[in-house]
Amino acid sequence: MDSVWFDGDAVGYLDQRALPRSVVRSRASTVDQIVEAIATLAVRGAPAIGIFGAYGVALMAPRLRGDRAAYERAAARIRAARPTAVNLAWAVDRVVAAVGDELGEAQRIHDEQRDVDRRIGEASVALFPSSGNVLTHCNTGPIATGGDGTALGCFVTAHRAGKNLHVFVDETRPLLQGARLTMFELREAGVPCTLIVDSAAAITMHRRQVRAVVVGADRIARNGDTANKIGTYGVAIIAAHLGIPFYVAAPRSTFDFALASGDEIPIEERNPDEVRIAADDPVYNPAFDVTPGRLITGFITEYGVLKPPYSDTIDDLAQRPRILSSTVMDRAQQHDALS
Amino acid sequence: MDSVWFDGDAVGYLDQRALPRSVVRSRASTVDQIVEAIATLAVRGAPAIGIFGAYGVALMAPRLRGDRAAYERAAARIRAARPTAVNLAWAVDRVVAAVGDELGEAQRIHDEQRDVDRRIGEASVALFPSSGNVLTHCNTGPIATGGDGTALGCFVTAHRAGKNLHVFVDETRPLLQGARLTMFELREAGVPCTLIVDSAAAITMHRRQVRAVVVGADRIARNGDTANKIGTYGVAIIAAHLGIPFYVAAPRSTFDFALASGDEIPIEERNPDEVRIAADDPVYNPAFDVTPGRLITGFITEYGVLKPPYSDTIDDLAQRPRILSSTVMDRAQQHDALS
Repeated sequence: MDSVWFDGDAVGYLDQRALPRSVVRSRASTVDQIVEAIATLAVRGAPAIGIFGAYGVALMAPRLRGDRAAYERAAARIRAARPTAVNLAWAVDRVVAAVGDELGEAQRIHDEQRDVDRRIGEASVALFPSSGNVLTHCNTGPIATGGDGTALGCFVTAHRAGKNLHVFVDETRPLLQGARLTMFELREAGVPCTLIVDSAAAITMHRRQVRAVVVGADRIARNGDTANKIGTYGVAIIAAHLGIPFYVAAPRSTFDFALASGDEIPIEERNPDEVRIAADDPVYNPAFDVTPGRLITGFITEYGVLKPPYSDTIDDLAQRPRILSSTVMDRAQQHDALS
Repeated sequence: MDSVWFDGDAVGYLDQRALPRSVVRSRASTVDQIVEAIATLAVRGAPAIGIFGAYGVALMAPRLRGDRAAYERAAARIRAARPTAVNLAWAVDRVVAAVGDELGEAQRIHDEQRDVDRRIGEASVALFPSSGNVLTHCNTGPIATGGDGTALGCFVTAHRAGKNLHVFVDETRPLLQGARLTMFELREAGVPCTLIVDSAAAITMHRRQVRAVVVGADRIARNGDTANKIGTYGVAIIAAHLGIPFYVAAPRSTFDFALASGDEIPIEERNPDEVRIAADDPVYNPAFDVTPGRLITGFITEYGVLKPPYSDTIDDLAQRPRILSSTVMDRAQQHDALS
């Protein structure tokens, strides 16, 4: 099930708000519609909003060819549609820089994500026991990334490799991405799974002998501090307390090498109505939290698993060249052959 | 707002499921109705279900005066309506033992709870800073206890004593007792409060400098292990990690001196439909978890604050005589004067 695609005069997307009750495919053909789809979480998941934003800029490029200032304003609005995930800004910047080949660049970002997800899944297999319980928070599957998924892709890859994993899924309040999307995707993939409320993570990890926690990320600083869906920080503290390995699965594009620590990551606060029952109740509704790098056992990336000290291993990651997928290389060769 | 009362030929109760949207008062006049009100959480909160169960048995006593076996079956059914909180069994046993004065005993349990709550609140005041943020989970106010409340009563007492507390309230999935009941009760009492999703507890405690966590309890073992609403264990781990004091406010009747540790506390698992979205999703839905005594800074009781080592201080508590409230003593004197 593709979550994002380009269809010529619009960017198509699966409306994630309607899942799992119904599969609604929509189209965004203006900057307003693109920004709204991201801001309302119709399209969500750090890699997926990067790809969606990239296609959005690529859609605007030919329309605004004669008005550079308007084009840059459009790109800036898309880039700022959500503040926390770095992939969106990273993808928009790549497309803007690819003057004259904006759509090609957006497609490369999408193709690369598929390849990156596959590599992340493969890198994770050796981390899991041959059988046992694992736990995840929020949604990091195909819907969220446009590929196989990051953390969820790890579970699916290990399952296909013959490992007997059972996944406990945090429902992920307030918007229930775990209950709505992760349960749906794991069941589609045939991976045994059980839903819990977020606050049952501690008793589940303790009494059901959870062997590993794997989550995704929205932005990772150079010291390993990781912004991810609200609740990740608490799960990481509980995992550390119980001696359970806690992994973050994320592509290189989620690392923000410009940030020394998580203190600099802007945390989006969302509408109180996502949470409150009485209309005038005061609410604190941060969409993300920041997990200190010292609570993270390793980062599962397309370049392998990074271990502490992160100041060294994440610096090494910053020096690596971008991996080009076979699809991307095939296209490049095809292009050379045709030109 | 009384949550439970005796009205002659029935036990009255505030239907907590309807709050805060509407105030629904109902009556239970049969054993089935009493058991159902407890099992469906129309009446909830460990002390409140104790009082409600006590009145229920007192209601049955005269009706079944001629059939001891039927009376004992009725009492046993009420006693087993929920398995985790010890107050229910304790209160039912007291009323059954008070042969011929069942209603008087139930009223004494109710009066004592009001007095106990007041003493718990007073014992807590010195634990709070003169101003700052605190955090709680689930609902422990007047609705839950029939008195001023336990943990919530502590905040209200400190507020009345001039302390400038602001309470962060976990919404408490799946049944949202925090969002529905605690927010309602704190606002009624004029205590500043802010609602958060359960999984935001970690970032809130860290970034908003929470100075103390106070929760209630459903059953406490001799070593301090404490069963309370699902999520309490995770909050306690996070508090310990961040160096924040974590208190349990509970009357002596919540201590189960027969249990050496929390491993022996039965944990109720509730209906998966409280949690799941897709009809056939597997769900693990424990209503409670057990927080190890070593994570608990102190127990706020009507006898003062118990500190570790709990094997000593809880043993001491077991030896204390029951506190008789002034109301109870007035009634007893009145009774003496009249008889």
